[in-house]
Amino acid sequence: MTPSWSRMIDEALNEDVGRGDLTTNAVVPAALQTDAVLVAKEDLVVCGLTVMAEVFRKVDPRIHMMPEIEEGAGAMAGNTICTFRGPARGILTGERVALNFFQNLSGVATLTRRFVERIAGTNARIIDTRKTIPGLRTLQKYAVRIGGGANHRFGLDDGILIKDNHIAIAGGVAEAMRRAQERAIHLHRIEIECATLDQVREALEAQARVIMLDNMTPDRMREAVALIRGQALVEASGNMTLENVRKVAETGVDLISVGAITHSSGGVDVSLRIG
Amino acid sequence: MTPSWSRMIDEALNEDVGRGDLTTNAVVPAALQTDAVLVAKEDLVVCGLTVMAEVFRKVDPRIHMMPEIEEGAGAMAGNTICTFRGPARGILTGERVALNFFQNLSGVATLTRRFVERIAGTNARIIDTRKTIPGLRTLQKYAVRIGGGANHRFGLDDGILIKDNHIAIAGGVAEAMRRAQERAIHLHRIEIECATLDQVREALEAQARVIMLDNMTPDRMREAVALIRGQALVEASGNMTLENVRKVAETGVDLISVGAITHSSGGVDVSLRIG
Amino acid sequence: MTPSWSRMIDEALNEDVGRGDLTTNAVVPAALQTDAVLVAKEDLVVCGLTVMAEVFRKVDPRIHMMPEIEEGAGAMAGNTICTFRGPARGILTGERVALNFFQNLSGVATLTRRFVERIAGTNARIIDTRKTIPGLRTLQKYAVRIGGGANHRFGLDDGILIKDNHIAIAGGVAEAMRRAQERAIHLHRIEIECATLDQVREALEAQARVIMLDNMTPDRMREAVALIRGQALVEASGNMTLENVRKVAETGVDLISVGAITHSSGGVDVSLRIG
Amino acid sequence: MTPSWSRMIDEALNEDVGRGDLTTNAVVPAALQTDAVLVAKEDLVVCGLTVMAEVFRKVDPRIHMMPEIEEGAGAMAGNTICTFRGPARGILTGERVALNFFQNLSGVATLTRRFVERIAGTNARIIDTRKTIPGLRTLQKYAVRIGGGANHRFGLDDGILIKDNHIAIAGGVAEAMRRAQERAIHLHRIEIECATLDQVREALEAQARVIMLDNMTPDRMREAVALIRGQALVEASGNMTLENVRKVAETGVDLISVGAITHSSGGVDVSLRIG
Amino acid sequence: MTPSWSRMIDEALNEDVGRGDLTTNAVVPAALQTDAVLVAKEDLVVCGLTVMAEVFRKVDPRIHMMPEIEEGAGAMAGNTICTFRGPARGILTGERVALNFFQNLSGVATLTRRFVERIAGTNARIIDTRKTIPGLRTLQKYAVRIGGGANHRFGLDDGILIKDNHIAIAGGVAEAMRRAQERAIHLHRIEIECATLDQVREALEAQARVIMLDNMTPDRMREAVALIRGQALVEASGNMTLENVRKVAETGVDLISVGAITHSSGGVDVSLRIG
Amino acid sequence: MTPSWSRMIDEALNEDVGRGDLTTNAVVPAALQTDAVLVAKEDLVVCGLTVMAEVFRKVDPRIHMMPEIEEGAGAMAGNTICTFRGPARGILTGERVALNFFQNLSGVATLTRRFVERIAGTNARIIDTRKTIPGLRTLQKYAVRIGGGANHRFGLDDGILIKDNHIAIAGGVAEAMRRAQERAIHLHRIEIECATLDQVREALEAQARVIMLDNMTPDRMREAVALIRGQALVEASGNMTLENVRKVAETGVDLISVGAITHSSGGVDVSLRIG
Repeated sequence: MTPSWSRMIDEALNEDVGRGDLTTNAVVPAALQTDAVLVAKEDLVVCGLTVMAEVFRKVDPRIHMMPEIEEGAGAMAGNTICTFRGPARGILTGERVALNFFQNLSGVATLTRRFVERIAGTNARIIDTRKTIPGLRTLQKYAVRIGGGANHRFGLDDGILIKDNHIAIAGGVAEAMRRAQERAIHLHRIEIECATLDQVREALEAQARVIMLDNMTPDRMREAVALIRGQALVEASGNMTLENVRKVAETGVDLISVGAITHSSGGVDVSLRIG
Repeated sequence: MTPSWSRMIDEALNEDVGRGDLTTNAVVPAALQTDAVLVAKEDLVVCGLTVMAEVFRKVDPRIHMMPEIEEGAGAMAGNTICTFRGPARGILTGERVALNFFQNLSGVATLTRRFVERIAGTNARIIDTRKTIPGLRTLQKYAVRIGGGANHRFGLDDGILIKDNHIAIAGGVAEAMRRAQERAIHLHRIEIECATLDQVREALEAQARVIMLDNMTPDRMREAVALIRGQALVEASGNMTLENVRKVAETGVDLISVGAITHSSGGVDVSLRIG
Repeated sequence: MTPSWSRMIDEALNEDVGRGDLTTNAVVPAALQTDAVLVAKEDLVVCGLTVMAEVFRKVDPRIHMMPEIEEGAGAMAGNTICTFRGPARGILTGERVALNFFQNLSGVATLTRRFVERIAGTNARIIDTRKTIPGLRTLQKYAVRIGGGANHRFGLDDGILIKDNHIAIAGGVAEAMRRAQERAIHLHRIEIECATLDQVREALEAQARVIMLDNMTPDRMREAVALIRGQALVEASGNMTLENVRKVAETGVDLISVGAITHSSGGVDVSLRIG
Repeated sequence: MTPSWSRMIDEALNEDVGRGDLTTNAVVPAALQTDAVLVAKEDLVVCGLTVMAEVFRKVDPRIHMMPEIEEGAGAMAGNTICTFRGPARGILTGERVALNFFQNLSGVATLTRRFVERIAGTNARIIDTRKTIPGLRTLQKYAVRIGGGANHRFGLDDGILIKDNHIAIAGGVAEAMRRAQERAIHLHRIEIECATLDQVREALEAQARVIMLDNMTPDRMREAVALIRGQALVEASGNMTLENVRKVAETGVDLISVGAITHSSGGVDVSLRIG
Repeated sequence: MTPSWSRMIDEALNEDVGRGDLTTNAVVPAALQTDAVLVAKEDLVVCGLTVMAEVFRKVDPRIHMMPEIEEGAGAMAGNTICTFRGPARGILTGERVALNFFQNLSGVATLTRRFVERIAGTNARIIDTRKTIPGLRTLQKYAVRIGGGANHRFGLDDGILIKDNHIAIAGGVAEAMRRAQERAIHLHRIEIECATLDQVREALEAQARVIMLDNMTPDRMREAVALIRGQALVEASGNMTLENVRKVAETGVDLISVGAITHSSGGVDVSLRIG
Repeated sequence: MTPSWSRMIDEALNEDVGRGDLTTNAVVPAALQTDAVLVAKEDLVVCGLTVMAEVFRKVDPRIHMMPEIEEGAGAMAGNTICTFRGPARGILTGERVALNFFQNLSGVATLTRRFVERIAGTNARIIDTRKTIPGLRTLQKYAVRIGGGANHRFGLDDGILIKDNHIAIAGGVAEAMRRAQERAIHLHRIEIECATLDQVREALEAQARVIMLDNMTPDRMREAVALIRGQALVEASGNMTLENVRKVAETGVDLISVGAITHSSGGVDVSLRIG
């Protein structure tokens, strides 16, 4: 459990439990033990078991979780995902926070998997973006991997991606590439966003190793891929949907980045049954 | 700006900016000033202006935001929401975090408004739940108010809501109510979840002041409302959608709680144009 | 142990132990084990055992506490409250912080119990206020419960209490009530402070569910209680002492709030005997 | 403002304001400005003006405080201590936390001053102890100085004081002194607690520079002072009250430590009048 | 000022100033203003001006720093580096912490510059390592850049470097490369440590883009460079000194990493003259 | 483990591991166990075993350290210092942070020991200064003790040392001493820096108990020691080196403070061999 995950769990428990669970502490005897079952209410990809276990551990270390379906596997509506055993107070108090994490992460993994399946058989991979829910970046990027996608950079500090505004400020692709190459550490390869085939040509001349095709039509992408011919990796970006993604993958791009898998996946439907 | 909002902004900047924005620091001169314009790319309810301003202030206090549309007002696709002026580096570095907050909060406000409009003319109010994104609870509940909804409790510690599991553990509605009344502070009125009309009757006998009807059909809700006859507030809960919410509102319930407005609103589509 | 309790213990240890216990580390061998006994030096209500145990646990997890008198029970001068066993260094280093907590909390519980006993046989309950020692709010409110009192709200965010200044700003009882009702979540009932019988009448008309009688004489309180006749709970407030509290209770009020039980209880006299 | 003071103010605001002041935000318009006056309701020594100003500054930086009586001066019942001007919401929201600090600190300063006045004309000084309210150590020690007292050590890490338990563990005064001298940094002089005249003699032989006379009668103290004859500073300790303190001072001791000035001073009575 | 720098300054002030500067507060009047001059006592590269300014700003925001020599420029023994003006108390209290930072960072920059100058005219660059002082990583890496060096990765999370132990565990260069390539994000190029020419050959076959030659003799390095012929960047590593570094640079390697510039630079000699 | 040590370890792990060890997580199987051996590559004094153990414990609590040479003992080049056993991932991930601490602390202890040995047979002791690496103050002062030195004050708040600037501001030795004595707590003895024999005489008259001779020649020191004749402790300060320290010690001073043992010790050379 990395420190940032642990910190988010603390924050979530703090905002939900605050000074204490008034209802449970009034109604439920402290000594009562119980079992609980987490059940899928729709088909989903399981993601967030460890996080859920940690939420309950922080509420009461005597609560134990026993998975029935493993992280990354599919659950069908009605399937038992995992069971819990421990003090009833802790299970009731931690329930909502645990589910809020699980529902979001499984939502991300499930939507990612649908995109991945949609492009099966092509050479492209689904990757994520920095369009994540504030505070959940590393958790959601983990969920993307669980769903079968790959990760783009984690932040502004672990990779270089020159975007349209950078190019405009630098006065062109060549100059932007030059400045970035001068400062880049030797373990990073530079990616640059191109909106036109001319920019793609400039980027290749400037030794760009990754080229992002921004909001191009599939036909234009195909031309770009032909132009690049393996001299650089190609990322397609912009309004990818389950409807259009296969067409994009078939243009020959290497990577397809999809913001919706993290910012708009929604939560999966599950239910915790107690007793 | 409450401390928890400020802390979440710090967390979001930390996860995105980390050790620094490699690309911008390499490509953009430190002294360059710029303007930027935030534009709506779909119809939406504006929510999160203050948060966005604070994100940029933390990145560089010399960045100023000038709203064109006020918090809570509607923006149409193509409208300018606000403009920014300040050091180009700071605007580029803070952009993604600011937008990630704004897109989520405006998404919540926009979906809430659609639910509110759907039940216009009835006596019911749309309220939120605790099914929020971990870490964003108070921000999302603020967005619900901006969208025209009202808030349910903020956590387990500022109100009492007896749910089915509490009733089962206590051995019945009457005993659960008795335990809660004994411990409740005198400023709280107790809400209890009822799944059947019998439970509603028991709750009324036990002096419940708020009754939640859980997953009842509209017809059953109407019966419950008739039974309660103003002796308690009535909250309807369970799988509310834009399609079914008006039918629920017309049963005469006072409150309709909708989890989807916070956990599955998705992000609105906006774009920051620089220069 | 809620996070805020744990944080206060850390703060207290930090301010007392700082960079280390110079005397004990110089004089006491690291390997030495010892026993210690906590003895009451006056009659008191025991409160703070868990906090004391946690203080020592943070100093050295090998220190164990064995209670002789349970939380909330009375101890007479000379009684052993609990015993400790573990490394002598840790017991000596943690002693002062542990006692500082215990003495304050037992002081609160003891004074609360005296107030509670003073009004035995009436229908009134002793409740606390927000006049607590900064940083010790939830600990002192716990001690009030241990002493037999009940809690008023924990902060400005878990209940609504309209005070004289709010009424003055709103321009009257009716308007203040209206504004509060509009924004209150449905789980909160509104309390309003009244200084005159006229205000009490206005409050009742405005559907106030709890009325605080501020600094009224017992005779005036009796009139107010007669006026209210069960339509609202009645809280008496203002300069309650062990001398006047029974007279107040006999007026028929439901709740009597006493600031002194938290802000001026003083510390009970105890002694930790080592070896 | 030292970091620890600022942290305690944050903690106090967090525990009182939490997610927001429900009443004030509902009833008081955001734009309303107001004045407020802090009035003494009993005679007291003013202490805590800076802390109060900082509390309000953290709530809303637009609130300004104007002192009428300066820190450390006496206020008579009815005197105005200071006035405030700024947004009404912030003044109402910060009031309780500001007063809780002010009342405790002025309570400490006021009681200290009474002890100091009681021994006027003798050579002794009133000093504090480590029996402080958890979290308020440095604030209360500041209040002691404002009241005219002096400070004992601030924690276990800035001075060496060998107590009875240390002596017992070391096997005697001489060995305890030897161990402490070996580890003491050269800027510290060692104090040792003595319960008998024999221990005083041993301490002098061992070059103790400060001797604490623990729970001795005034007559015994006089003998000890005669024995010591200026070879060491003498601190009297144990159950000092306003009644017995002058008798102690007249024995010729240099320092008299009083735990009650910090742990049991109680809060002074003041009132904030708004508008 | 990134959050981690600010946090380290807080930590350093906390450990040095703690509960307050006893000497200065006793001896220096609060109102006294003074000037101070920072003078080099040996030749050095100036590094840490912003950090020093921030240290003093945190101690007292009224202290202003005026640089005489700019960041990264050389100062000769006797030169004035910068001057300060403000409250004397703050300048005396902050002095040691400010100098401790400045001396370490200028030490790093100065030693880096000497290495850089030693290899002038070759194609190699001096880079740092992760052998930094705990807590000062990003500050020291900044100082390396100020001294004319370049940075290796900042941590284990922003680049991939396969070391000897990884190779041994994976069972060889090819398998280690394969595993790393599978998980690497597309913006990272993989570096691998090679101890022999055979490993260099394997690495090239596995498409390594950066090869670290670990503890090879200059002759062996020359052979490796010949073998690699521009197919990968080459980093030389292991016990680089001012004596041997030019010989290494002349082998044709691209990068020379030097641990000593951060872990053993020592502090430069400077003096703050006040008044 | 004091909180400040634990916090520094967290900071160091955070800056090195960040979002995770990309290489190790890609290449090393999660289940793989391994052994590792820490070997000295030069003669050194072992210091930092507990810190190293804690680093690994925080990375993975299943990693165990078994010391072969105890803290404070000497290791010769080639000696095994300790061994580790546990999950290979954790050992590889924690390695650099653990070594960075160990190398710095053993560097301090080793250099301290060399100074201590250089003055063997004299009455002087080697002490440290406040010229420590920011954030490592208490760790480095611990290393000084391990190396056989003693500690000067830990910060500005646990002792009084009047320096040249304080004297200048106060207008002379006598007045500076008077002000310090007035505010000093009774457990502190005052040290004052003297640059001339006249100042030494003034300091003695003013009852200074510790006199620091600043940057005097050995001959001048000898005169000062003769003048002081045991009326005060004498500390020699200023540019102490292994070359000149014995000459200083032979002047008869009690304490010799050496800044270089903490700010410029450099790191010892060790190597962690895995598998």
